[in-house]
Amino acid sequence: MSSAGLRRLLSAGGSQLSSNLLSVRIRSLSLATTMEQRVVTLESVNPNVIKMEYAVRGPLVIRATAIEKELEAGVSKPFKTVTKANIGDAHAMGQKPITFLRQVVSLCLMPSLMDDPFIPSDAKERARAILNGCKGGSLGSYSDSPGIEIIRHHVAEYIERRDGFPSNWENIILCAGASEGIRGIMKMMIKHENGIKPGVMIPIPQYPLYSATIAEYDLHQIGYYLNESTNWGLDISELERAYNEAKEVSYPKVLVVINPGNPTGNVLSKENIKGIIKFAYEKKLFLFADEVYQDNVYAKGCKFHSFKKLIMEMGAPYNKMELASFMSCSKGYMGECGLRGGYAELINVDPQVKALYLKSISAKLCPTTLGQAVMECVVNPPQEEEPSYNQFMEEKHAVLSSLAKRAEMVVETFNSVPGMSCNIVQGAMYAFPQIMLPKKAVEAAKAAGQAPDVFYAFQLLENTGICIIPGSGFGQQPGTYHFRTTILPQPEMLKTMLEKFREFHTNFIKLYE
Amino acid sequence: MSSAGLRRLLSAGGSQLSSNLLSVRIRSLSLATTMEQRVVTLESVNPNVIKMEYAVRGPLVIRATAIEKELEAGVSKPFKTVTKANIGDAHAMGQKPITFLRQVVSLCLMPSLMDDPFIPSDAKERARAILNGCKGGSLGSYSDSPGIEIIRHHVAEYIERRDGFPSNWENIILCAGASEGIRGIMKMMIKHENGIKPGVMIPIPQYPLYSATIAEYDLHQIGYYLNESTNWGLDISELERAYNEAKEVSYPKVLVVINPGNPTGNVLSKENIKGIIKFAYEKKLFLFADEVYQDNVYAKGCKFHSFKKLIMEMGAPYNKMELASFMSCSKGYMGECGLRGGYAELINVDPQVKALYLKSISAKLCPTTLGQAVMECVVNPPQEEEPSYNQFMEEKHAVLSSLAKRAEMVVETFNSVPGMSCNIVQGAMYAFPQIMLPKKAVEAAKAAGQAPDVFYAFQLLENTGICIIPGSGFGQQPGTYHFRTTILPQPEMLKTMLEKFREFHTNFIKLYE
Repeated sequence: MSSAGLRRLLSAGGSQLSSNLLSVRIRSLSLATTMEQRVVTLESVNPNVIKMEYAVRGPLVIRATAIEKELEAGVSKPFKTVTKANIGDAHAMGQKPITFLRQVVSLCLMPSLMDDPFIPSDAKERARAILNGCKGGSLGSYSDSPGIEIIRHHVAEYIERRDGFPSNWENIILCAGASEGIRGIMKMMIKHENGIKPGVMIPIPQYPLYSATIAEYDLHQIGYYLNESTNWGLDISELERAYNEAKEVSYPKVLVVINPGNPTGNVLSKENIKGIIKFAYEKKLFLFADEVYQDNVYAKGCKFHSFKKLIMEMGAPYNKMELASFMSCSKGYMGECGLRGGYAELINVDPQVKALYLKSISAKLCPTTLGQAVMECVVNPPQEEEPSYNQFMEEKHAVLSSLAKRAEMVVETFNSVPGMSCNIVQGAMYAFPQIMLPKKAVEAAKAAGQAPDVFYAFQLLENTGICIIPGSGFGQQPGTYHFRTTILPQPEMLKTMLEKFREFHTNFIKLYE
Repeated sequence: MSSAGLRRLLSAGGSQLSSNLLSVRIRSLSLATTMEQRVVTLESVNPNVIKMEYAVRGPLVIRATAIEKELEAGVSKPFKTVTKANIGDAHAMGQKPITFLRQVVSLCLMPSLMDDPFIPSDAKERARAILNGCKGGSLGSYSDSPGIEIIRHHVAEYIERRDGFPSNWENIILCAGASEGIRGIMKMMIKHENGIKPGVMIPIPQYPLYSATIAEYDLHQIGYYLNESTNWGLDISELERAYNEAKEVSYPKVLVVINPGNPTGNVLSKENIKGIIKFAYEKKLFLFADEVYQDNVYAKGCKFHSFKKLIMEMGAPYNKMELASFMSCSKGYMGECGLRGGYAELINVDPQVKALYLKSISAKLCPTTLGQAVMECVVNPPQEEEPSYNQFMEEKHAVLSSLAKRAEMVVETFNSVPGMSCNIVQGAMYAFPQIMLPKKAVEAAKAAGQAPDVFYAFQLLENTGICIIPGSGFGQQPGTYHFRTTILPQPEMLKTMLEKFREFHTNFIKLYE
């Protein structure tokens, strides 16, 4: 394989490793390849894995981690720390865990803590209920593949309270983070018909789990553009356009909607969702509602509406539509990314298909029981009359109100920088501002063999230590440039980050004007 | 779809749901199918998911769970409890967790426990080291996709101590149980060449994760029979036979070896492993060493030898062979199945392929950090001079010596029953006895539409409450009948189970003689 080929391969989403680092890597890899005859090489490896990209953990992040090590080793830089605004990881950015949640899970692990007088009784009661639902009374036993039954019941009750419509606990599948559920149910869609691929409609910009999974599963990606000029709104006419174009080369099967939006921060209105549902019904599409940010709504006048609630409200024939909705403990006010908890609700799914799905996850045995215990706390939090209630509500509101302030701070700052514009962050944990890049910067990027937004992001990282993800990792209208940043650094850190960002951007524009 | 077709579909590994239950299900499913037009049905679902089977959680287990509910509801049965000897789930069968391990993980979750004077200092020291390795000092942050760096270092040191050969921490990939690692690395193998599938050699009988994954990934399964007459030994001549037969229809790419063996309980000798390595080298096969039972060796004269150690001992050219070795916290003396911890060591894997693997797991974000913390305890247990040492060693030895006794008890009992024969359980957690079924029993099974060993297993379940898995779920020589039972029920429960088993078998033979 040529160096150029390898360079293309190693570059993700149009981005690439910094030039020096890459040259070293290419030399050492070529050496290794010629030395031995291996069974699995680039020529014999799964080609879909070569195609797939996941920018949130791509070359920029690899470089950011390398810079952290350089700083530790004493290398001099124009900054002292790396700020990782690339990933929705609240605890990594200083958010504290919710006390109640950690108490319940610790009690499950170490039941001797039941005697600890400092742990409140409601936490103990939750832990006891979970352990009663575990085989042998231990979290160390496998649960059923779709999860511990009592927790599935509580998830269903949570959804009923949220929506005002019944939820069947047997339709709740616990999973190790929403990603596992999304990937697992998407897998059911893989069936080529006479060489034609099933199509999956995803927003552009999108969360790259979707493009990565579509590539890995060899499905056809159908991008529909979100409308930047209406705060990343979802236009039904654009769905139509994308669908009509794609049906020539694929058979569209799935419509993915992320609400609140990642990376856009948009929150869909009730009317908008109804329009989407009608479109999906008309085109016979299976709906994926990625609703992991349902607790993260900040802007005045915005409210989270679940797809489940709206298909039920709309009545026949929409209330018979196939829908999978996903939730996670990694986002919201919990931010427990590492503990890997989540659920999928499968609505109106063919019972035979559901039976097959259950069979398919049985070979994976079960999602982490600890992650399941975390979900129990999310769907069954302390009630007003319980001893943990006040502290729980304080902690929850402190996180959510601080996030709301940070969302505003980010938007205000970016909109005050010449050559940047940023839509309102109505929800979720991200902003996706547009940057106007001078012609000379675009040319400099070209000379460096990088996409312009990737070039910009690498310059930002090397000069300020701020790690964001270029828009090309999520998709954007051709000729426009964006980046995604989280709003997660704690307020002081975020303030510093935004000041440095403004300074960098101003200098960057001056340099290339 | 016809009822007969659905019956075939719903039956797993030749087995099926009990007849009445199935009829009800078929009726309700047919009704549902005719009522609505769905996007995803049996006709449009992933066909590989239809093909895949995982007997360890198949129809027998579903029926066992249903029987448990019937018992709870007061239905009268010839037994009071169901004994689930179908799955290697130690805690479910009454094994107690290792104290040190639970302490460390609880400390990680609830660092306020650092002040607890009853928790020993070495547990606190381990927890501190783990938290220092977590972003933001919280297990709630995402780890790097291959795991928390300090734990990867400790895994590598554990392997070095075990084998006496260097291990590179960058080759250690933590995963949510060994299954995730096995499935992830197997995925890299998927590449059809001109319509010909890659072949994966697996033992027969095998652990059905392999057949399920092979079906899901549309690979070609190449079964090599283990030799029952030499205590389930692995004959190189049989590898040759299977390989030669398969290379006509596939291109063999992977050789899977499970040692200690599941479901056979065999432990491979050093010489035997060397022969396997030479065979894999000669045929250019990527080796998968499923070594999750490395702590579970009971029989005198038997010892666990890792594939890694032996390729290194054998020197060139074998020490350059591609090998993936898998370990788990679900087995051994820990039995922490629900917590989902494990690792893969990738040895001599092409750096480009390894980079692709790391990319492919990045979209899944990270394995549960709690499962990773459990693995830290497994690879870095209390040392002689540390305060937890004595208790830890006592607990560990109590589990392992009790398992050794139970292994003997199971073998002795089955060998004393006329019409049964059982090889020595040298290691792992299972026995795989052969049962001689009278002709009339085979005919009765046929009349019931079941494979003879499935018929036997259902009769056993309905009459005694004992749930085992028929040999057809693992594979067996045509015309022979087996079952897999775990040795995990606690001694008293196991004794009762074996007595009931003997009685059932004797009556069953009498009935059909």
